[in-house]
Amino acid sequence: MQIDIVTCLPGLVEGFFSQSIVKRATEGGKVSINIIDLREYGIGKSRQIDDYAFGGGAGMVMMIEPLVNCIKDLQSRTRYDEIIYMTPDGDLFDQKTANSFSLKGNLMIICGHYKGIDERVRESYITKELSIGDYVLSGGEIPAAVVTDAIVRLIPGAMNDETSALTDSFQDNLLAPPVYTRPADFEGLKVPEILLSGNFKKIEEWRVEKAIERTQKRRPDLWKKTL
Amino acid sequence: MQIDIVTCLPGLVEGFFSQSIVKRATEGGKVSINIIDLREYGIGKSRQIDDYAFGGGAGMVMMIEPLVNCIKDLQSRTRYDEIIYMTPDGDLFDQKTANSFSLKGNLMIICGHYKGIDERVRESYITKELSIGDYVLSGGEIPAAVVTDAIVRLIPGAMNDETSALTDSFQDNLLAPPVYTRPADFEGLKVPEILLSGNFKKIEEWRVEKAIERTQKRRPDLWKKTL
Repeated sequence: MQIDIVTCLPGLVEGFFSQSIVKRATEGGKVSINIIDLREYGIGKSRQIDDYAFGGGAGMVMMIEPLVNCIKDLQSRTRYDEIIYMTPDGDLFDQKTANSFSLKGNLMIICGHYKGIDERVRESYITKELSIGDYVLSGGEIPAAVVTDAIVRLIPGAMNDETSALTDSFQDNLLAPPVYTRPADFEGLKVPEILLSGNFKKIEEWRVEKAIERTQKRRPDLWKKTL
Repeated sequence: MQIDIVTCLPGLVEGFFSQSIVKRATEGGKVSINIIDLREYGIGKSRQIDDYAFGGGAGMVMMIEPLVNCIKDLQSRTRYDEIIYMTPDGDLFDQKTANSFSLKGNLMIICGHYKGIDERVRESYITKELSIGDYVLSGGEIPAAVVTDAIVRLIPGAMNDETSALTDSFQDNLLAPPVYTRPADFEGLKVPEILLSGNFKKIEEWRVEKAIERTQKRRPDLWKKTL
């Protein structure tokens, strides 16, 4: 799997991709992640990548030409399953999308910045628009990190323990049950007795019960999907 | 405003906070952002911060003691409006929450990692649990960056142009209209004529119309909220 991230601010995400689970997956050869500096495709001496919006108004717009040149250059070397644009008006990214993307081959992720990218790029080159939630950020870089992290951790062998991802929230439309670790008593705050019982059948039942309780209480919308 | 981010992997987010809009807001004195290494509060020589889950199962759990010691230490120096825990089963973060948080004073954000933090910390110390969306990530660091970015860009003076944030998606429950910049014709792909007309009243009307069209088509759930 290859994930190519196009950004005009590579420094924003480089730290993230050189650490943690993504680093482990990269080193293990499970996935190759490349950060492409859009400015290398900028126009003229100043490597211009943005300009004022037609029709006036605040905020800069990322120009079509550098983006198209960049996309075409990357496509000349790699066949992409999806060219993704991170945007607050895209389809809401969720665990189901993460699962399906973790089975794909190569992804290109375009990070918008400022007021976004020229609409013509979206209409003619983007195959998938994704939003990570109903809020506005200063750019698509953190959202690209969100999507990459969610996908990469699902690739077998990327996590320490493969069974770990299966017990996460959302994989069965249930939130995860509460977790506890040592000490059993901290300043009077105690761990539920059942977890110390050693009866793993009962513990498993308790966990399912708590997951259901939590989902019903916190996310009735998710709970409905399990019915 | 002060945002203190507690993490066991500071390197994951340091790059992000030293760049872009967050950097500008920090330098302008609008906000002070501190990254606190939880390992400084780790137990024993090895600075232990996680341990196996009571009751068995895959994945590590972040221990109560280092977290409580860290929270208390930070509280001895700062009064926090909220102590936030980033978790997929928290309340869904949205633009409304970002708006309200941008008016607060001091926030502490706890980043979970592995299977999450000991439930007793959540019950006794956390005042607000937030999720950035229905997907699981390898830790709370990127979510903390999401929340911080969404808040900081709303602080007056943090962005280049203060009117810019007001025309974003979600501020009026509408998605943003399409944007275009030079050239007006790129390989036959043309900018809508109206945007080149210079008639700013008509342009504004066109933008509202497009924003409504896009919201109705892409996000009927948001559109319902405007009615």
